Amino acid sequence: MTSKSFSFQLNPPTEQSARLGQIRCPHGTVDTPVFMPVGTVGTVKGLTVDQVESTGATMILGNTYHLALRPGSKLVEKLGGLHKFTGWQGPILTDSGGFQVFSLSKINKVTEEAATFQSHIDGAKLELTPEESIRIQERLGSDVAMVLDHVVALPSERKLVEEAMERSTRWAARCLDAASREQQAKFAIVQGGLDVSLRRRSSEGLTALPFDGYAVGGLSVGEPPAEMYRVIEATTPFLPRDKPRYLMGVGRPIDLLEGIARGIDMFDCVMPTRNGRNALAFTWNGTVRLRNAKHAEDPRPLDENCPCLACKHSRSYLRHLFNAKEMLGPILLTHHNLTFYQLVMQEARKQIAAGTFDDWLSRQRGVIDEPER
Amino acid sequence: MTSKSFSFQLNPPTEQSARLGQIRCPHGTVDTPVFMPVGTVGTVKGLTVDQVESTGATMILGNTYHLALRPGSKLVEKLGGLHKFTGWQGPILTDSGGFQVFSLSKINKVTEEAATFQSHIDGAKLELTPEESIRIQERLGSDVAMVLDHVVALPSERKLVEEAMERSTRWAARCLDAASREQQAKFAIVQGGLDVSLRRRSSEGLTALPFDGYAVGGLSVGEPPAEMYRVIEATTPFLPRDKPRYLMGVGRPIDLLEGIARGIDMFDCVMPTRNGRNALAFTWNGTVRLRNAKHAEDPRPLDENCPCLACKHSRSYLRHLFNAKEMLGPILLTHHNLTFYQLVMQEARKQIAAGTFDDWLSRQRGVIDEPER
Repeated sequence: MTSKSFSFQLNPPTEQSARLGQIRCPHGTVDTPVFMPVGTVGTVKGLTVDQVESTGATMILGNTYHLALRPGSKLVEKLGGLHKFTGWQGPILTDSGGFQVFSLSKINKVTEEAATFQSHIDGAKLELTPEESIRIQERLGSDVAMVLDHVVALPSERKLVEEAMERSTRWAARCLDAASREQQAKFAIVQGGLDVSLRRRSSEGLTALPFDGYAVGGLSVGEPPAEMYRVIEATTPFLPRDKPRYLMGVGRPIDLLEGIARGIDMFDCVMPTRNGRNALAFTWNGTVRLRNAKHAEDPRPLDENCPCLACKHSRSYLRHLFNAKEMLGPILLTHHNLTFYQLVMQEARKQIAAGTFDDWLSRQRGVIDEPER
Repeated sequence: MTSKSFSFQLNPPTEQSARLGQIRCPHGTVDTPVFMPVGTVGTVKGLTVDQVESTGATMILGNTYHLALRPGSKLVEKLGGLHKFTGWQGPILTDSGGFQVFSLSKINKVTEEAATFQSHIDGAKLELTPEESIRIQERLGSDVAMVLDHVVALPSERKLVEEAMERSTRWAARCLDAASREQQAKFAIVQGGLDVSLRRRSSEGLTALPFDGYAVGGLSVGEPPAEMYRVIEATTPFLPRDKPRYLMGVGRPIDLLEGIARGIDMFDCVMPTRNGRNALAFTWNGTVRLRNAKHAEDPRPLDENCPCLACKHSRSYLRHLFNAKEMLGPILLTHHNLTFYQLVMQEARKQIAAGTFDDWLSRQRGVIDEPER
């Protein structure tokens, strides 16, 4: 059953691929297309809640796998849920743990019943079932919960990808059966690797079930961007137009725009935060590696029109902070990159509204995804 | 010659030891007693300039040694000076590098001419003279520069302490001769270890020279607090009443108050920032070790009356951040400790104004310097 506390509206209604919408959920209203910063273990790394808000972010993501291991979902529930625990008062989406179980931990076994894995922290042997993933997310109290999916590495044999996709569909149904918290929306995750016929079967199987939204999962795992775009383009036509579509774990600014062009409404990714911590900045003129010696005496900010905390400073100062291994370097560049991602989404929404999105996107290609010239 | 751009006024005039004053310098006005957060290498570790301001700090310290090694004082000068480089618009005091040369680096040799030492970063052999320390600080453009002093470890033989003290006085005179930037105040540093007769000779030698302020240096290097208090008490009577007195590198909140009781106006210390990064918080009820398991499920903030960023959160959340090695833990606790230090100074000024400082101080003893009960 879909959640009565969650709604999505295309605004204005459109038959175009790139679309504007609005999500309403218990902790607020979110304009789509939206980019959600990743707050892995109860914090967007390096930023206070006020600073995350000041980037323009309206909705963030929390990682079920990380939070379940530390501090534990029962503790979070006892402290009043993830909103109260972290201080973030806007909407939160939690992933299911599926991706992390398969990427961060040593898997012991996947059966029809559960995934058994070793904690990446202390090696403890743990089990995650679709039901347990939902229970954890209900304790966390997120606005949107994701179903547990079986993620496989790409490339893999078709048979393996197919089995994992079909298991993911059965697990999605079990997640829906297990859900008891009416005010929490549940999103399904389309799998099927790079095989569009499998993606179609996955979409058909999942859209037969009453989910509040649909994600495209298992992408951006090493395949060329063009392959990813092809799979998105072949998948979204099989997803309901009146439900939000979420491209998980993607990506570079250009990938977000290419996703929007193919009908995606929601994104999350660690790229702005992780790259920010490593001195790589995103700008409208392309990427900037602040460790590069050419910035040593540069008095200009990264982007003189950017309202972020980093752009109050010179490139020279930012480079110095990274050279001196000062925390403020990662902090400022995280704030810059998250602000830039929000500005990209804001501009994308504006261009969609003006009917100029496709032209605008074509002017970004080869610019924002390349090193600054 | 003293600086025409720098003034200090006791306000109101008083013959009491604990005193209220006001420093005016090119970048602003500072109420004393004042605590200056340490911005070692061009950043108060972990905080943005806005966040440092929001702790209530009015004046910060920059380390000449660190900045000279990285990014270099010529680069800072080229980028417009330390204020423009870091974005901190209030007063800045720079130390001379003396303490760091003797504490962080391997010293090769101290002669009458210079201290020769190895960089703690790359082992490069470097030389620091009194003149060069002043040149560096003039390039940095701080409001207050400190003279280069010869610091010795305590305990040391009296003869060594005496020689270093007398050399420090000669170096102070050389600093004054080398100074060319009229708008930068110059402070001398009283040395002499724990020997009050040496401290007196040092004070008399230095106050014969036209400095803008006088620091008590070489303390808080391992001696018992009572020893430190004894030396301060024996030194301040030999310092001019109408110049600011600065106790360098001290200390715990209680040490600041004991210093104020003995006539000190200015303080700096890494304790609030360094301890904050290590999960130790200062509060009116004493110190709190957030890694302690007893805080695991504690929904209370560190201090419910504290306006800092950390006190918007539960102790449980703060502890979780440190357990998960999240940057936000050090950030929030740094903000808390610096805010607390400013509140302590604010309250001290209020108590001095009300004539109740001594009573109030006696109620803090054994409370704010002990673990919270």
